[in-house]
Amino acid sequence: MDGEFSQLRALVRQFVDERDWDQFHTPKNLSAALSVEAAELLEHFQWLHKGDQAELGPDRLVEVRHEMADVLVYLVRLADKLDVDLVQAVQEKMVLNRAKYPAEQVRGDARKYDAY
Amino acid sequence: MDGEFSQLRALVRQFVDERDWDQFHTPKNLSAALSVEAAELLEHFQWLHKGDQAELGPDRLVEVRHEMADVLVYLVRLADKLDVDLVQAVQEKMVLNRAKYPAEQVRGDARKYDAY
Amino acid sequence: MDGEFSQLRALVRQFVDERDWDQFHTPKNLSAALSVEAAELLEHFQWLHKGDQAELGPDRLVEVRHEMADVLVYLVRLADKLDVDLVQAVQEKMVLNRAKYPAEQVRGDARKYDAY
Amino acid sequence: MDGEFSQLRALVRQFVDERDWDQFHTPKNLSAALSVEAAELLEHFQWLHKGDQAELGPDRLVEVRHEMADVLVYLVRLADKLDVDLVQAVQEKMVLNRAKYPAEQVRGDARKYDAY
Repeated sequence: MDGEFSQLRALVRQFVDERDWDQFHTPKNLSAALSVEAAELLEHFQWLHKGDQAELGPDRLVEVRHEMADVLVYLVRLADKLDVDLVQAVQEKMVLNRAKYPAEQVRGDARKYDAY
Repeated sequence: MDGEFSQLRALVRQFVDERDWDQFHTPKNLSAALSVEAAELLEHFQWLHKGDQAELGPDRLVEVRHEMADVLVYLVRLADKLDVDLVQAVQEKMVLNRAKYPAEQVRGDARKYDAY
Repeated sequence: MDGEFSQLRALVRQFVDERDWDQFHTPKNLSAALSVEAAELLEHFQWLHKGDQAELGPDRLVEVRHEMADVLVYLVRLADKLDVDLVQAVQEKMVLNRAKYPAEQVRGDARKYDAY
Repeated sequence: MDGEFSQLRALVRQFVDERDWDQFHTPKNLSAALSVEAAELLEHFQWLHKGDQAELGPDRLVEVRHEMADVLVYLVRLADKLDVDLVQAVQEKMVLNRAKYPAEQVRGDARKYDAY
């Protein structure tokens, strides 16, 4: 059985191939598009206090969901073009993060977290 | 068996809880952090031509993988805080994208794609 | 007497020419670099409450100043490459903003502002 | 005679005060808004080759000018809130850049520039 990332990758591939858009999908362009989508997500939160569900409200939450989907689509596409296994990449990165931020040293510390 | 996203969510939750960092994780802050990580990813590509594997080289590819992991970590965390199912969100968004960009009308068209 | 933007443009031009870096300065690359610098600026604020001078502290304020300078350098350089008069562009945009957000209708309204 | 930045600062202050929007303008929020505007600028270039005037065309160039204006408006506003002199900040930063990238060592070198 394919994993979720493998399913998403196939979904995005099919969408791109049907439109012959692979020609635009250099890693450079995809990373720019990912950054643009991340900013469109941020735009929903920029004047809010915390941006939790209650403050967002149901309509804006739908829009936020769709921006999150766009971010993930470009991330999955970029991973496909660079042969990156995203789950494995997170697991590796979390090992590095654990070494960099030992729990007993940084617990609840805003200054240490801020330096993160 | 848990899916990959569920596994990642648990991994990030544990990391955050061990450090008592949940207090900093408002959706607003997480969306800012996600945007910052996306820009750190873009930084690797900004002066390159296409940014494919050959142009990046092995060392920089490792750094790119780690930036991609950071983006995914914050996205998974934001989804956790807002009760968003990321796989479902992508599936929904792709239905909308299919309606908005009919394959027969936009195929290989840079102008149409550009308007995307 | 030259205006401040004209002086900055000359300063950046000289720096770039001495290094033969104009070849990297396509408008596309410069807009990516500008976006990266804006995110580096945001990074200083992402876990803060408001980010005012007192919360930043003197050392971080110096770093913030330098990130703001980097944003302006790339904006001035992009304007130079696209023959854009930045002062005139702001004046034009403010006329549009005044028409879009009539003061008497949006005054102090978070929802209206939020839609901005 | 006031300089250009002083004029822009006054223009933005008046616009904000007429709308009672100062309450939303924490440095944190302004840095997020600046980052969002920078991404909206990048969006115009993301699928283009170089993004020069000819490739943009006249209509898109007008949109690009307006996005550049938005970036500058938020930068000027943030500088106002943090008492930063932007011209002085650029002059200081360029001194640091000259020390970091000696012309005779980095001239025309993509690798060195890339590390910039």
